Amino acid sequence: MKQAIYPGTFDPFTYGHIDVLERALNIFDRVSIVVAVNSQKKTLFTIDERLAMIRESLANYERVSVEKFEGGLLIDYAKQKGVSAIIRGLRQVADFEYEFQIALMNRHLHPEITTVFLMPNEKYTYLTSSIIREVASLGGDVGDFVPPPVLHALHQKFKKDAVSAKDLTEK
Amino acid sequence: MKQAIYPGTFDPFTYGHIDVLERALNIFDRVSIVVAVNSQKKTLFTIDERLAMIRESLANYERVSVEKFEGGLLIDYAKQKGVSAIIRGLRQVADFEYEFQIALMNRHLHPEITTVFLMPNEKYTYLTSSIIREVASLGGDVGDFVPPPVLHALHQKFKKDAVSAKDLTEK
Amino acid sequence: MKQAIYPGTFDPFTYGHIDVLERALNIFDRVSIVVAVNSQKKTLFTIDERLAMIRESLANYERVSVEKFEGGLLIDYAKQKGVSAIIRGLRQVADFEYEFQIALMNRHLHPEITTVFLMPNEKYTYLTSSIIREVASLGGDVGDFVPPPVLHALHQKFKKDAVSAKDLTEK
Amino acid sequence: MKQAIYPGTFDPFTYGHIDVLERALNIFDRVSIVVAVNSQKKTLFTIDERLAMIRESLANYERVSVEKFEGGLLIDYAKQKGVSAIIRGLRQVADFEYEFQIALMNRHLHPEITTVFLMPNEKYTYLTSSIIREVASLGGDVGDFVPPPVLHALHQKFKKDAVSAKDLTEK
Amino acid sequence: MKQAIYPGTFDPFTYGHIDVLERALNIFDRVSIVVAVNSQKKTLFTIDERLAMIRESLANYERVSVEKFEGGLLIDYAKQKGVSAIIRGLRQVADFEYEFQIALMNRHLHPEITTVFLMPNEKYTYLTSSIIREVASLGGDVGDFVPPPVLHALHQKFKKDAVSAKDLTEK
Amino acid sequence: MKQAIYPGTFDPFTYGHIDVLERALNIFDRVSIVVAVNSQKKTLFTIDERLAMIRESLANYERVSVEKFEGGLLIDYAKQKGVSAIIRGLRQVADFEYEFQIALMNRHLHPEITTVFLMPNEKYTYLTSSIIREVASLGGDVGDFVPPPVLHALHQKFKKDAVSAKDLTEK
Repeated sequence: MKQAIYPGTFDPFTYGHIDVLERALNIFDRVSIVVAVNSQKKTLFTIDERLAMIRESLANYERVSVEKFEGGLLIDYAKQKGVSAIIRGLRQVADFEYEFQIALMNRHLHPEITTVFLMPNEKYTYLTSSIIREVASLGGDVGDFVPPPVLHALHQKFKKDAVSAKDLTEK
Repeated sequence: MKQAIYPGTFDPFTYGHIDVLERALNIFDRVSIVVAVNSQKKTLFTIDERLAMIRESLANYERVSVEKFEGGLLIDYAKQKGVSAIIRGLRQVADFEYEFQIALMNRHLHPEITTVFLMPNEKYTYLTSSIIREVASLGGDVGDFVPPPVLHALHQKFKKDAVSAKDLTEK
Repeated sequence: MKQAIYPGTFDPFTYGHIDVLERALNIFDRVSIVVAVNSQKKTLFTIDERLAMIRESLANYERVSVEKFEGGLLIDYAKQKGVSAIIRGLRQVADFEYEFQIALMNRHLHPEITTVFLMPNEKYTYLTSSIIREVASLGGDVGDFVPPPVLHALHQKFKKDAVSAKDLTEK
Repeated sequence: MKQAIYPGTFDPFTYGHIDVLERALNIFDRVSIVVAVNSQKKTLFTIDERLAMIRESLANYERVSVEKFEGGLLIDYAKQKGVSAIIRGLRQVADFEYEFQIALMNRHLHPEITTVFLMPNEKYTYLTSSIIREVASLGGDVGDFVPPPVLHALHQKFKKDAVSAKDLTEK
Repeated sequence: MKQAIYPGTFDPFTYGHIDVLERALNIFDRVSIVVAVNSQKKTLFTIDERLAMIRESLANYERVSVEKFEGGLLIDYAKQKGVSAIIRGLRQVADFEYEFQIALMNRHLHPEITTVFLMPNEKYTYLTSSIIREVASLGGDVGDFVPPPVLHALHQKFKKDAVSAKDLTEK
Repeated sequence: MKQAIYPGTFDPFTYGHIDVLERALNIFDRVSIVVAVNSQKKTLFTIDERLAMIRESLANYERVSVEKFEGGLLIDYAKQKGVSAIIRGLRQVADFEYEFQIALMNRHLHPEITTVFLMPNEKYTYLTSSIIREVASLGGDVGDFVPPPVLHALHQKFKKDAVSAKDLTEK
């Protein structure tokens, strides 16, 4: 049985990620979505919020699990789980060189695990989690780009912020 | 059983191609190397020479076959063979956009077949068949970049040409 | 009245070109599609075939004309027509630097004419005339990418070729 | 009457921005420079300093206005003003993909507004506001790259800092 | 006598830097490694730690000096030292445009000093100081990428941190 | 004494090439311009025409020689001449990866010879010999981009062609 992990911060999870996941499921028997804490930058959603949203978005998918990545080297985690591949979506030239740095370092550390690059549908070529966060925070409609549980969470997040802001203004 | 094809012109086959093939064999149960005639430009080696060199280079590999691609749409060939993936090596930014054009068109035609991009070892990042042809034709040593059967064929090809050129000069 | 030209080889004209044209019509009062002979490489369709296909594809568009460019410097042609802008679609990084070479040379020659870069819909990011020619010639369905008159012309072109080939084979 | 907005942080405004503005004025009847607060990173100059410098630099330009952008989605602001286009300067490959992300999201939200990419003179290809800030802060002469009001403001800013630093040192 | 400086943050110094240095020593009579404080971001190692590690790593190199760069414009420092060139390693497309910005600004300020770009061995194409810091901090083995004094310092740094963390946890 | 070669097809020689040459003369004691026959594509000017034009353009330069490269591997030629470096101008991202292929192969063959990349003035970032040929052939003024002997040769070349064309037309 061929297994792969699909790691990321997923802040938030988008239809672009689902598209890459579906491509991976054509090739692998099982795919684990591995959600990283991302210690380097503050995320919009906590790790537990992100895990919950992804699990809800993928409720109808078989052969998929969603896991928290507590830290350490991702490639060690992959090794320990016994997977044969790490999945990465590759959308743009700007992704390319950074992804290759990581992939080559991982190959150096555990050559038996292969990084597999998959290309999302062209609809998602220019879709990033960061533009979703920015547009949603300013009230733009991102319903075409994220699954309903994520859309709901974005609404909650920014409505609550709006309320807080209003509270502050009124006082 | 998961099968993939690894198509190319392979004019000639290099250690970079073998590196990509080995990565693919980590993921797929069988990989077919599909050698294209390339009607658009003249190749240094005929299709039969290329098939013979690749077969000899891969004599000790299991789970690999080497096939002639007679023409038509590659994606139709993949469909007909029942493979789940097309393997492409991705080395440089310059490859990126052309590969994506092809991959997206193929996805449009048969969405159930996935293009998988694999990254060769950094030793082969800047290795191309065209630089091998050029350096070998000028007498440079390419023994670190191609397997012995290809090296032998390059020597034969350019020695024979040298002789022909000499013949012409002498007359 | 603001006028622009949209030059190209259009071999063949695609929905990507129409998308760029529609964007240009949002900005300019009139747009002339200027079809170049392209002396540097053989085209699939003759200049007159391309003009006819584009005219038929754009029959319902107002404020658009379709013109043959007989040769010379395009920027001189633009100057002579009195347009204020040259439209170029910009899809990919690979287009970028070549387009800038041309645009800067044109600016040097006639600084009062501005090159305007427009971005097609992401659906057309990886769509090129050359991939259309290749896929259509091999029998692939390109109906989602070109308007009906172009699709018809591609069918005629490749059916006729198929017939000729058959004729040759039968003799 | 064709109107466009030219948004940016302009921290500070350079001759590269003026060059893009002049190209835009060849095409549009009116261009509004829309100065954004940039909540994501601290700017060298306050929004009011930037507005004042740009207004002074453009004192002799007709058909141009300079406006403060208080926040929200830029594309909503463009819609509300009734402009037909958003102007962006495109200098380098590194700009390209980020700009396309924004432009495609904007197109998704209000398709009737077109993002227009204009190319500055090659003199300004590698000129960025950030390198101006860095060089000026270290005492380098940037007089060839920014208009006099900006040069003056940079001198004031860094002289004052130098004085403050000296004061601190002396105490 | 031809002299050059090779400036950088070197946080930490890697075999990729040594490879570029060796190429520079083929061309120049003397090369000074100029270590910058980097006021813009916090470094893993202090300037004095970095100087010490580089000096120890290069103990057997002749015609090389290692210097602290206290601040100001690097090109002014180069001018004052009377060198004819600034050395920069150029590995990837992502480096390219940023390096050109700096180089062109430096050329503008002191045209008699030339920026020379050298290409490291392909082994080091995707090697960056930042990936070394990240992998070492997570316990990965980076012994193939940095000289022994740097490896030792990384071990000390992250062991000490581990201890501190443990101390904090235990209290 | 440090010597370098600056190889190219120079079809034709431009001010961009002279700019790179001048940068190289800041670093090396002598620079040889090595003019290649270019067997792969037809040149506008013969090798002897190109040599003559370059020599005339550089009549007032000291420490420069102009040489014909008869064929073979350039790196062997460099080795035989005993130079320490090969000079290449690097203008754009599109040049980058091709140049690195060549440079790494050359390094593999003779590691003691270093490829040095120099950046032309931003005025010449988008200047190529091929755009000069194209614009000059269509009657555009390229006097700002090539030295007088090259401009004269372009006029002769295209006037003569015009005459031939006229002759053909009249008959």
